[in-house]
Amino acid sequence: MDETISLVLFSGTDDKLQAAAVLAAGGAAMGKPVHIFLQYWALDAFRKDRIGADHGLAPEAGEKGRAAVEAAAKAGQASWADTMRAVKELGGVDIQACSLSMDVLKIEESDLDPLVDGVQGVAAFYINAGSGQIVFI
Amino acid sequence: MDETISLVLFSGTDDKLQAAAVLAAGGAAMGKPVHIFLQYWALDAFRKDRIGADHGLAPEAGEKGRAAVEAAAKAGQASWADTMRAVKELGGVDIQACSLSMDVLKIEESDLDPLVDGVQGVAAFYINAGSGQIVFI
Amino acid sequence: MDETISLVLFSGTDDKLQAAAVLAAGGAAMGKPVHIFLQYWALDAFRKDRIGADHGLAPEAGEKGRAAVEAAAKAGQASWADTMRAVKELGGVDIQACSLSMDVLKIEESDLDPLVDGVQGVAAFYINAGSGQIVFI
Repeated sequence: MDETISLVLFSGTDDKLQAAAVLAAGGAAMGKPVHIFLQYWALDAFRKDRIGADHGLAPEAGEKGRAAVEAAAKAGQASWADTMRAVKELGGVDIQACSLSMDVLKIEESDLDPLVDGVQGVAAFYINAGSGQIVFI
Repeated sequence: MDETISLVLFSGTDDKLQAAAVLAAGGAAMGKPVHIFLQYWALDAFRKDRIGADHGLAPEAGEKGRAAVEAAAKAGQASWADTMRAVKELGGVDIQACSLSMDVLKIEESDLDPLVDGVQGVAAFYINAGSGQIVFI
Repeated sequence: MDETISLVLFSGTDDKLQAAAVLAAGGAAMGKPVHIFLQYWALDAFRKDRIGADHGLAPEAGEKGRAAVEAAAKAGQASWADTMRAVKELGGVDIQACSLSMDVLKIEESDLDPLVDGVQGVAAFYINAGSGQIVFI
């Protein structure tokens, strides 16, 4: 169970990022090297000035879904960003911003939360992913 | 062609669940063990009191897309739930609810349709996935 | 680094198709055989009479996201369709329409852009995917 898992995060809503954080945390806990590659709206959600903001939910959540997610947060569920921080402290998780998405959204590396380790292109992403699992979220 | 495929179902709209059912059915028909892990809105769609309800479509479907999907259903296309039931009868498909999503949405195991075999955490998910393919839908 | 990567394209918004084109281009540049399987709204986006149209963005993009994407296009970023065309000329990329989605959306093969190589069922998709990576977008 030591194979690499690569998570390509595209969506920036809090529910999908929470699902991603759970998969990252679980993979790291199993001893899998976890590579995270941030594109588009997920990359935008990792800006340091808004990583703690409300990023909304998938439209299908509806009002009942939103109420459930808010109640879970009030009951103490860690945010996806806090889960990511805890997982990174354990090691084995690398978070990279997609250079093309940086260009499209005009984001500079200094705009990003310290959770992000660097910026890379898609070739580097594939090299790190090797023949391991790739999951697009 | 006997490698495991694991489908993480996050979205609960009928179009994405239909795509998931097709991938599950095709995988099972090829002799691949299929593991399905239900999170968030997909989990909600498997509640026994609403599995047969209209769960909407992705927003991008638009009116023309909705009309096409409704016409296909009227012409006899099996619903995703019926496809899942047929596939499960053939064997080789296991459907598990994500324990964390159960907590967030305050769903009890008794709320779920009998299609769901049980509740598991992300560690069990990864153990069952092994080094096989993981697809997030 | 010669393992197959299979991209199941479900979403038809321009941002997700752009992300898919980047993954296809990067994979092909690394010498990976790339198989693309078009379902639902992604399939609809490959109709020859609308492949060049505006297919919108994920709802979460918002107005600022849309402005950034439009500015990138004006600054010369290639569209996903142009990227796909360039990648196909290099070889190693195969684009197939899902036969079930063709039925649902009542699309004929003659409706599709020449980028699409043919129509196949899910069994053929799995045979081509082999034990390589499968990414659902």
